Amino acid sequence: MIIDSHAHVVMPDAAYRVAANLVASRANPMEGLRLPSDDIIRPVTEAHIRNMDKVKTDIQFISPRPYLQLHSIRPAKVTAVWTRYVNDLIHRQCEMFPDRLKGVAGLPQHGTLSPTNSLAELERCVKQLGFIGCLLNPDPTEGDGEPPPGLGDEFWYPLYEKMVELDVPALIHSASSCQPRESYTLKFINEESTAVISLLDSKVFEKFPKLKIVVSHGGGAIPFQMGRFRAWAARRNGPSFDEMCRKLHFDTCNYSKEALEFLFKIMGVDNCMFGTERPGTGTAMNKEWGHDFDDLKPIVESIESLSADDKHKLFEGNAKKLYSTNFGHAHPGHKH
Amino acid sequence: MIIDSHAHVVMPDAAYRVAANLVASRANPMEGLRLPSDDIIRPVTEAHIRNMDKVKTDIQFISPRPYLQLHSIRPAKVTAVWTRYVNDLIHRQCEMFPDRLKGVAGLPQHGTLSPTNSLAELERCVKQLGFIGCLLNPDPTEGDGEPPPGLGDEFWYPLYEKMVELDVPALIHSASSCQPRESYTLKFINEESTAVISLLDSKVFEKFPKLKIVVSHGGGAIPFQMGRFRAWAARRNGPSFDEMCRKLHFDTCNYSKEALEFLFKIMGVDNCMFGTERPGTGTAMNKEWGHDFDDLKPIVESIESLSADDKHKLFEGNAKKLYSTNFGHAHPGHKH
Amino acid sequence: MIIDSHAHVVMPDAAYRVAANLVASRANPMEGLRLPSDDIIRPVTEAHIRNMDKVKTDIQFISPRPYLQLHSIRPAKVTAVWTRYVNDLIHRQCEMFPDRLKGVAGLPQHGTLSPTNSLAELERCVKQLGFIGCLLNPDPTEGDGEPPPGLGDEFWYPLYEKMVELDVPALIHSASSCQPRESYTLKFINEESTAVISLLDSKVFEKFPKLKIVVSHGGGAIPFQMGRFRAWAARRNGPSFDEMCRKLHFDTCNYSKEALEFLFKIMGVDNCMFGTERPGTGTAMNKEWGHDFDDLKPIVESIESLSADDKHKLFEGNAKKLYSTNFGHAHPGHKH
Amino acid sequence: MIIDSHAHVVMPDAAYRVAANLVASRANPMEGLRLPSDDIIRPVTEAHIRNMDKVKTDIQFISPRPYLQLHSIRPAKVTAVWTRYVNDLIHRQCEMFPDRLKGVAGLPQHGTLSPTNSLAELERCVKQLGFIGCLLNPDPTEGDGEPPPGLGDEFWYPLYEKMVELDVPALIHSASSCQPRESYTLKFINEESTAVISLLDSKVFEKFPKLKIVVSHGGGAIPFQMGRFRAWAARRNGPSFDEMCRKLHFDTCNYSKEALEFLFKIMGVDNCMFGTERPGTGTAMNKEWGHDFDDLKPIVESIESLSADDKHKLFEGNAKKLYSTNFGHAHPGHKH
Amino acid sequence: MIIDSHAHVVMPDAAYRVAANLVASRANPMEGLRLPSDDIIRPVTEAHIRNMDKVKTDIQFISPRPYLQLHSIRPAKVTAVWTRYVNDLIHRQCEMFPDRLKGVAGLPQHGTLSPTNSLAELERCVKQLGFIGCLLNPDPTEGDGEPPPGLGDEFWYPLYEKMVELDVPALIHSASSCQPRESYTLKFINEESTAVISLLDSKVFEKFPKLKIVVSHGGGAIPFQMGRFRAWAARRNGPSFDEMCRKLHFDTCNYSKEALEFLFKIMGVDNCMFGTERPGTGTAMNKEWGHDFDDLKPIVESIESLSADDKHKLFEGNAKKLYSTNFGHAHPGHKH
Amino acid sequence: MIIDSHAHVVMPDAAYRVAANLVASRANPMEGLRLPSDDIIRPVTEAHIRNMDKVKTDIQFISPRPYLQLHSIRPAKVTAVWTRYVNDLIHRQCEMFPDRLKGVAGLPQHGTLSPTNSLAELERCVKQLGFIGCLLNPDPTEGDGEPPPGLGDEFWYPLYEKMVELDVPALIHSASSCQPRESYTLKFINEESTAVISLLDSKVFEKFPKLKIVVSHGGGAIPFQMGRFRAWAARRNGPSFDEMCRKLHFDTCNYSKEALEFLFKIMGVDNCMFGTERPGTGTAMNKEWGHDFDDLKPIVESIESLSADDKHKLFEGNAKKLYSTNFGHAHPGHKH
Repeated sequence: MIIDSHAHVVMPDAAYRVAANLVASRANPMEGLRLPSDDIIRPVTEAHIRNMDKVKTDIQFISPRPYLQLHSIRPAKVTAVWTRYVNDLIHRQCEMFPDRLKGVAGLPQHGTLSPTNSLAELERCVKQLGFIGCLLNPDPTEGDGEPPPGLGDEFWYPLYEKMVELDVPALIHSASSCQPRESYTLKFINEESTAVISLLDSKVFEKFPKLKIVVSHGGGAIPFQMGRFRAWAARRNGPSFDEMCRKLHFDTCNYSKEALEFLFKIMGVDNCMFGTERPGTGTAMNKEWGHDFDDLKPIVESIESLSADDKHKLFEGNAKKLYSTNFGHAHPGHKH
Repeated sequence: MIIDSHAHVVMPDAAYRVAANLVASRANPMEGLRLPSDDIIRPVTEAHIRNMDKVKTDIQFISPRPYLQLHSIRPAKVTAVWTRYVNDLIHRQCEMFPDRLKGVAGLPQHGTLSPTNSLAELERCVKQLGFIGCLLNPDPTEGDGEPPPGLGDEFWYPLYEKMVELDVPALIHSASSCQPRESYTLKFINEESTAVISLLDSKVFEKFPKLKIVVSHGGGAIPFQMGRFRAWAARRNGPSFDEMCRKLHFDTCNYSKEALEFLFKIMGVDNCMFGTERPGTGTAMNKEWGHDFDDLKPIVESIESLSADDKHKLFEGNAKKLYSTNFGHAHPGHKH
Repeated sequence: MIIDSHAHVVMPDAAYRVAANLVASRANPMEGLRLPSDDIIRPVTEAHIRNMDKVKTDIQFISPRPYLQLHSIRPAKVTAVWTRYVNDLIHRQCEMFPDRLKGVAGLPQHGTLSPTNSLAELERCVKQLGFIGCLLNPDPTEGDGEPPPGLGDEFWYPLYEKMVELDVPALIHSASSCQPRESYTLKFINEESTAVISLLDSKVFEKFPKLKIVVSHGGGAIPFQMGRFRAWAARRNGPSFDEMCRKLHFDTCNYSKEALEFLFKIMGVDNCMFGTERPGTGTAMNKEWGHDFDDLKPIVESIESLSADDKHKLFEGNAKKLYSTNFGHAHPGHKH
Repeated sequence: MIIDSHAHVVMPDAAYRVAANLVASRANPMEGLRLPSDDIIRPVTEAHIRNMDKVKTDIQFISPRPYLQLHSIRPAKVTAVWTRYVNDLIHRQCEMFPDRLKGVAGLPQHGTLSPTNSLAELERCVKQLGFIGCLLNPDPTEGDGEPPPGLGDEFWYPLYEKMVELDVPALIHSASSCQPRESYTLKFINEESTAVISLLDSKVFEKFPKLKIVVSHGGGAIPFQMGRFRAWAARRNGPSFDEMCRKLHFDTCNYSKEALEFLFKIMGVDNCMFGTERPGTGTAMNKEWGHDFDDLKPIVESIESLSADDKHKLFEGNAKKLYSTNFGHAHPGHKH
Repeated sequence: MIIDSHAHVVMPDAAYRVAANLVASRANPMEGLRLPSDDIIRPVTEAHIRNMDKVKTDIQFISPRPYLQLHSIRPAKVTAVWTRYVNDLIHRQCEMFPDRLKGVAGLPQHGTLSPTNSLAELERCVKQLGFIGCLLNPDPTEGDGEPPPGLGDEFWYPLYEKMVELDVPALIHSASSCQPRESYTLKFINEESTAVISLLDSKVFEKFPKLKIVVSHGGGAIPFQMGRFRAWAARRNGPSFDEMCRKLHFDTCNYSKEALEFLFKIMGVDNCMFGTERPGTGTAMNKEWGHDFDDLKPIVESIESLSADDKHKLFEGNAKKLYSTNFGHAHPGHKH
Repeated sequence: MIIDSHAHVVMPDAAYRVAANLVASRANPMEGLRLPSDDIIRPVTEAHIRNMDKVKTDIQFISPRPYLQLHSIRPAKVTAVWTRYVNDLIHRQCEMFPDRLKGVAGLPQHGTLSPTNSLAELERCVKQLGFIGCLLNPDPTEGDGEPPPGLGDEFWYPLYEKMVELDVPALIHSASSCQPRESYTLKFINEESTAVISLLDSKVFEKFPKLKIVVSHGGGAIPFQMGRFRAWAARRNGPSFDEMCRKLHFDTCNYSKEALEFLFKIMGVDNCMFGTERPGTGTAMNKEWGHDFDDLKPIVESIESLSADDKHKLFEGNAKKLYSTNFGHAHPGHKH
């Protein structure tokens, strides 16, 4: 079974219309949002499923489009309304294809607001909508102003507590970027590096030993920059940096074969899992491969250093183990 | 002939998708926008024309949806790209129905930037796209920070100069509002009052005697609050405030019959013109009337104090006189 | 009996000296303020009474000069000291002419400070000085920075609670304006429109059914822009906007006959009351009328559509009903 | 002859009313200021002259009340209008008593604006109104935000150039203070210390060898803190600090006999001149002396270490030498 | 016995390296600071002692170098780490020469943070390190932004309470200065003037009658500017300003003989005590004296108006009385 | 020959003292800096050379300690004075060991100031001090506020022009970091990724085809994240991302063998060069290797996929080719 643990919702234009209207009006006046009818939702969902079929993905975990989370659009009400709307849309799609799609919740994180503003929505998504995890953006200011403390800080503890209570993982994934010099796609990478170091240089895993964290895109710069942090750990006389990294998981959403080989070698197969973000940044023809960058299944399969067991872990086992809550359940009904 | 001088473009969902993407990505990275195909543009345009037919409007002047102009979304590149896109979309619709639609340009006004940033786009719209006027937002900060100087200030002269050069009117119309206490629909009204007073308490019309200004929605609060400003003018020993108001035009986009009667009486029929914003805020059933609030043709026609000549001016004559540039011309072709 | 429900204190130059000194010194060092002696207060008060006699006003409700409330001058101590001083001055004048003048309190509102800072002064004015109401400024930042939430927000509940407890009305009236494009006299109008919409689009009257609110100057733009808000209410399927407006009162301090006629028709005579702000903005000769703009008694009397009963309500009945607390009492003595 | 080189205008309450109105309205709308009639100006001026007679002052140099200069009230238009008004009032008083009063101009300094905004008013005062000098505020932000560069910086050169061109001295005197911890009377002292050090640690006197500077109140802390700055100069191997101080003048507006003795000893009689600020801070009974603190003539006369020649320099000679421009001339007429 | 109550620690270059690294890295990452070894600390301490011997000082009270306290370097962690480090270094030096050096603590004051952030470190220094007092900086923003309230404000009460509880005095001494126009050495003086006035114009000594305050450098401008504040007190009808000043102590760290004579006369010998800041600003040759500016012992001794008893108080008695806590005790051991 | 192209100056404590004093005093007052005497400089330089000998490095290119560049300490004068001081110190060390050390200049970049502020110092270093290159910090705000535009922006053109004129390369290397969540060592990595993308997504190399850029630490995240950017380039139909990367050089200052192997494979040996930053972050024992992390010579030598020619390029050839200016020259004398 091929589980793609990192993918995002495909939305009909009507949902973008809602986003544009929310932003433009700053949610004022706001007269209640309703999901589009199934007639509108179904075709894009079916196309999405066909897209999965094409690359032989059995199940995708779908979360909000990260750059469209509107985490820094003021007022925070815009973000809150939009996040709920998108989660509901994801849920509706999961209901349509309960064997193919699993929901990963967006959180209404906003600027430097405490993540306590996200607890209720996370709980709603897991308990009422049957979601199996959530996205976590380390910088909801999106670069517009001073960022909040790093993920290692107590600032984030309330969220970790709720995640542990609900037993769901977070996928570290930043959203948009307001700095022209750092496009959102690049900020993803930088935020992942920052997240890893902040978490590992903290007491988070002492305090929350059951916390489940997945870092997107193979972990930003960290696997390649291990030496720098190994030296730092060596100087501290604590556990090695490689050992510390075992607290985290990484996905394969990095569109180069040599980098994936490198990732598995550095971080270990047990801490990695298949993810493609398809359709997304990588949905472009790789002429050398003869297929899209984000059609990563054959790429992973072609890595000779991986055993069959390794591949099973990457494609299915690790994801199932980590995202165990709600995974097997049908998505519960829910009134929009 | 019924000319509706104040209406806004009806856009397909695909255009909202573009807006949402632009805002979310802060236009970074940006790989070139293209209008949707005619297959997508045509149906909404035809529906729009049917909507006009329903209320017997012959011609509409269509401009960007005001609250969706993104005048305060940073960086300014978002606004610039979006404004051009919407003007192109309006142009495409005008090309499809050249006898029914005339284009009124959005300007890429942004925050407190000088309006010189808008001159090229205005010129492009009038000279290349055959547009007949433009929107003018007195507060492109949309309430997010200190506003720019009032419309009477020299800050705005470069725009007035270009308008006079191109001989096109501006319709005073604010955009969105970032202050929760003042929704955009209310800010429209407040900005119109501010615009009228700022313009009349200035040397703008001395400096630009040919400047053509239309104030939306019947002029905000001013017709009702004339007394206050009459007293102010009386104290100055200059022309009366009523006389000063003759420099301006007002549209009928105010959905109450008694207010329209009042408006015509105060501002004079020669300075008013038919406008409905349909479809828009007023597209809701007025149970008393038995038709939508923005179906204003029968309402104006039912005002007994108006002569046939008055009605002709309101419905057709005044608009044609003011929006004379490009009015009769077919919209020129243009490469998107 | 003619009750002018909206007028402001006439102050001797000595009081302006106090204001100038307070502002210039930022109340530091401050060695205690004393009211001028009666020798100084009495002549301006007598002149004020003569001014009332001239237009046949029996009783005026006098409050601080709005634009001189110093609501945005930092530090807040300036505002607090000045507000108390002016209230004491009003009280002294009321003591001099207890049958002709009734006190309406200024509140030491300041920038975005919670209105809880005003409760003690309101209570002092009503309980110790015998005042019958207060002014309420919806934007004490006076345009200098982000405004506080709208009057419909819970931010204002502590004040409403105290007003209901003391059973006194508030007259909605903004103060000065720091934005050059919006003079204070224009801001009055815009703030009134904002106040009406914010209050009616809220749960304030559900929560405080006995709250008494009067909107100055005939309600800003609202009577003239009813259509826009009727459509909004129609879309919501709740009570009509006209019905919602019955929660509020409006005064006649709008210096045009046709606007007053319009006001009575739209808002209903039961919700209006006589007010002139005399002497003030309207104290200028209306050549057409042959008397001052703010000599509104003959204007109201000349409106043919009003019955004798209507006029009685406007001139006396409604004000007495609303401002019932302390109205009949002599002003209690008080040590300055 | 007793020349009191440091005194401030005594204004009728009507002028304070103007100030209060200007500030309250932020000069908007502003319909032209006129000086009060001579009937109002004359009595306070006569009282002022009697006050001078009482302490046997022959001539006073009068400038605006420093704390009332409104240098940090926004917008700058308030300051500009008020400064001109006060200078005109000073001029009118000087015209009334040309042998007793000489005008010292206020400058419309504002926040961190360049002092070039003050050149025209300085020139007007000297050339048209016959003024003999000006006030100079080293911190026109009045503590509200980051101050401008010190007086030694090139920022101030345009003003120095104009002063040298007109050959008039500046009296260093700060205005109000926005910081509650530092009342304006204390800020005077601190700003004087800062001014002295900034000027002496700069190239100002190299660049403008004819620049004339008087430091108020005996020079702030400097005479008492000479040791600290002597050590600093000693370390630099340049001229001694005492020598550097000879570039500056100091007035006696320091209400203690022992301090004045100390001042004359440290700074030298040639660099000091009589000044009292009367009426002002020092107009309070000194019980030990049996007369007001600011009745400094007998105090200076009682200092035994001073020769008759010294006293002549202090009371008359030094002031005449420094304030030579316009001193002997009658004040020219001027249209207000 | 000669007690120099105002001196600062002499640090090895290695300590400056720590400071530079802390600032440069913003204390991130920070891997624990250790004092240099005694091999490095001892030589500079011995040199310091020799420096004392040279001017016949028996005991010095040493505190952190004021301008190096880093009170406005962000984040506050830099300040906290550095303050503790310097206090530990002072303690180590006191342990080396327990009969010659007594520790005066630096506090980790930061920007506008409440002084409660300093209570634990003060307690540690007094109780564990045997320190006898502390420095108190009235403006830990160092001029970078709005200052905290004056020392008379309740803002400071928690610190006063702790000082009284521990029975240790504070030496008023500002730190660095971020304003180019006001170097730190000048800011010292201005802050002292501000501190004196803020304290005396407050209820601090009513609330904390046992509070012990020493003002550095002879009290800023105050002794020289007594007249201004005497007049202010006279107007208030309370105690005289001279009487109020008796609540405070002043040190002799003002490098001019005439100023010291003046100081003793104005403030009284009982409220003054010997202090030199040596080595520091005054360590420069005074050619007239033939020795350094800060070699103040012979200067004080040469003042004829002082009796032998006066000199004893100045050199020894007053300091012993004020700094009684821990004075006689050996410094307790402490683990760095 | 082993050339270590990326190393930083080793400074005596006395230089840190200078830094600490400059920061603490904000360079005010500032009485001229002098380098320590050779007695102090020589021992640390000799130790540095011994350190090189130990790992068999022949030549090191030494630049300022990056985190100590003080690029965001206000005012900018601190940075300017410090930068010049450090460059002079580097020069002195190069003069002492002209065959072993080559100078790489620090630039006085500051916050968002234009890099034109650095041109004179760069020219001085190259022309007068014989330096062979410079550091370039893409974010001199060090995270304290909005960053400047990316390196691809015209903002940086003046610097590129000067670099091309002088024919010297820049080593991309950020400085400190003010955000607690992102320590400076991590910011290095993130800034390198940002720099690469900003440069390659720009016209910089079209405009400056001879510009020489080296990216520190192996290029941040980019070699590992090639897939993401390959997809981006593929979508644009321009040159491949791998091809674009050939415009840049990368150093080996990444302390892991597998990462270096990966780097050479991805970026190609021709675009890489030896660099260690020794002594620095990597000067810690790698237990697995049995020597320090930054002793990279044996590591590179042990990579089997490299030919002898490859190694020669990495260790010597590429650096000599790129840093050709001044490389062979003795360092010119220079007066400090």
